[in-house]
Amino acid sequence: MVKSFFGSNYREVEVGEIVTLAKATPLVLECGVSVSDIPIAFQTYGQLNGNRSNAILVCHALTADQYVAGTHPVTGKPGWWNEMVGPGKPIDTDRFFVICSNVLGGCMGSFGPKEINPITNKPYGLSFPFITVGDMVRAQALLLDHFGIERLFAAIGGSMGGMQVLEWATKFPERVRAAAPISTATRQSAQNIAFHEIGRQAIMADPDWCDGDYFQQKKFPSKGLAVARMAAHVTYMSEPMLQDKFGRKLQDREAYTYGFDADFRVESYLRHQGQSFVDRFDANSYLYLTRAASYFDLTEGGSKKLTDVFAGTKVRYCVVSFTSDWLYSSVESRKLVRALNAAAASVSFTEIESDKGHDSFLLDLPEFESVMRGFVTGSADLFGVD
Amino acid sequence: MVKSFFGSNYREVEVGEIVTLAKATPLVLECGVSVSDIPIAFQTYGQLNGNRSNAILVCHALTADQYVAGTHPVTGKPGWWNEMVGPGKPIDTDRFFVICSNVLGGCMGSFGPKEINPITNKPYGLSFPFITVGDMVRAQALLLDHFGIERLFAAIGGSMGGMQVLEWATKFPERVRAAAPISTATRQSAQNIAFHEIGRQAIMADPDWCDGDYFQQKKFPSKGLAVARMAAHVTYMSEPMLQDKFGRKLQDREAYTYGFDADFRVESYLRHQGQSFVDRFDANSYLYLTRAASYFDLTEGGSKKLTDVFAGTKVRYCVVSFTSDWLYSSVESRKLVRALNAAAASVSFTEIESDKGHDSFLLDLPEFESVMRGFVTGSADLFGVD
Repeated sequence: MVKSFFGSNYREVEVGEIVTLAKATPLVLECGVSVSDIPIAFQTYGQLNGNRSNAILVCHALTADQYVAGTHPVTGKPGWWNEMVGPGKPIDTDRFFVICSNVLGGCMGSFGPKEINPITNKPYGLSFPFITVGDMVRAQALLLDHFGIERLFAAIGGSMGGMQVLEWATKFPERVRAAAPISTATRQSAQNIAFHEIGRQAIMADPDWCDGDYFQQKKFPSKGLAVARMAAHVTYMSEPMLQDKFGRKLQDREAYTYGFDADFRVESYLRHQGQSFVDRFDANSYLYLTRAASYFDLTEGGSKKLTDVFAGTKVRYCVVSFTSDWLYSSVESRKLVRALNAAAASVSFTEIESDKGHDSFLLDLPEFESVMRGFVTGSADLFGVD
Repeated sequence: MVKSFFGSNYREVEVGEIVTLAKATPLVLECGVSVSDIPIAFQTYGQLNGNRSNAILVCHALTADQYVAGTHPVTGKPGWWNEMVGPGKPIDTDRFFVICSNVLGGCMGSFGPKEINPITNKPYGLSFPFITVGDMVRAQALLLDHFGIERLFAAIGGSMGGMQVLEWATKFPERVRAAAPISTATRQSAQNIAFHEIGRQAIMADPDWCDGDYFQQKKFPSKGLAVARMAAHVTYMSEPMLQDKFGRKLQDREAYTYGFDADFRVESYLRHQGQSFVDRFDANSYLYLTRAASYFDLTEGGSKKLTDVFAGTKVRYCVVSFTSDWLYSSVESRKLVRALNAAAASVSFTEIESDKGHDSFLLDLPEFESVMRGFVTGSADLFGVD
């Protein structure tokens, strides 16, 4: 257990298991920088079987972390996929060994911009190297080496976690049997690049960001980070859900106050979302991770055809999207499925009815859970995983 | 001609015609505050006919102004509806007298938060009273009184301009013959309230906003206002348009720079949009106008049925929406049209195919122009306007 500090209040908490990787051989990042002795924080659930064939890597989204299940040490809330992962749950930890690691560039104990640079003894801040989704996956591969796991039974994840799953299945096809990219895309769209840029500009506009050096200055860009989160949060929901949940309801008042207070419930809700994010996330991490997501493109700038990327794949795919998700819409999943089919891959595609927008994959939706249960158990039976 | 100052550089320019209204009788705003001697800046195009029956009020959107046609004195660009309004154009100034006034709360010469309070001799800033779309319209009604125009031939406008059109047609039905609410809704949706809240929070997060007192402090919240504009600008476009126009194209470079520079063209474009907005718009005006739009609700908090709002109307309506507009989508226009039909109103509805998103109504789209031309000339012939 290693302690780390969190958010605007610099609170210290234990972040769980941490292992130091890339010790003998440095990890060469896509940006060209070599890094070594990098900490990777992770959680595991269930037991690795004798032949190490039952490992499932769960990949987390932009601002989530390794706490898939159980109680989160910073927020005190349940893990982000508590309904999906556990004993008897769709990803059944009585049968499978589930690993989730905090991504490279993250802020929950893994090698990220708020970690201390041993040379300067200061947080990296903007001297942290730029990382990509590919780098995140290669760090995860080192973690699997550490566990002695040659081949994952499955890689599963949504949103930026789905990008990692696609990267796993295409860059390490011999190390993955089954892959479930959920609520994701084969490349970040122009609109999503735009939303991420807005978030970064909001953070960098905050003078308390201090050009990334806020920890040294004993400050924190709370306002900018909150605005970034508010802008992002709207993209995680859907218009019908917002209308249904909030509509034009007023917040603890009978009439307009004719002021800039949060007259509307949706305004109050958004402010709360911004504020609680600031208490648990690092601003520089947000910059680096959104950058990594924007750089993600399986076709490498169009230099490869998507079908060729999947050519000859033996991975069994399960693609899932949600009808009201406009951040990574079903259109994107269908493009992925078309390319997989054209590459003669084993692929199933489920589009699930939901008015909950992009965050649907994080919610307790029975249809989604049954799809995941079916895919995981069906693949396990097919591949003879005990 | 009166000079006013603009944006972050405090540049002084002549803003065109200004008239002082509410001289003898104060205007009582919906917030309860009475205001008098209020300046309203306006432009006119064409000639008012002898019986004053050919007046068209064009209502502008959130951040536009009275410069519908001709050259804008601050930006040097053509007026925002230059293709729609002019001699021989769909809104033909050879036949009609077109008036457009800067809305109450605006920053192009009308009574707004950057105007000087004659009592304190300082800009109003946050001491400016809260205004509503209804107040904007009642100020416009005073302007018509000034011109001796009892009844408008038509009120036409898009987005927040369309809200003003709806307010005109429902609050002053005896003063409007024809109404064209375009790309608008009968009330601001939860999602749009949310986006406006993000913009306001971005401005108020900027320490150079100085609690609204930036002019006195010789500062300007350029960064916050730019972020607000960037977030709003994404909502004015559509995902397909962004993909088509920018996709993942890089900005004047061959490869990722692995940095926070604007690697992608869409990032560079958004930054430019933010920056140019800061040079022409007032931050406090943006706060007040987004507040006014969020407060807009023809059903008055659900206390009225929409059909009852239009009951007995003699106004001839032309409702227009654009397929890819997700800010004020066709769904909203259809709700309006259903209520109008249920109220036995004269109403036509055109949904125009466009991938250009909400800003479609500002663009040179032949189908839209022919619809407007048909509605205006048809209504003029019907009502015997010479």
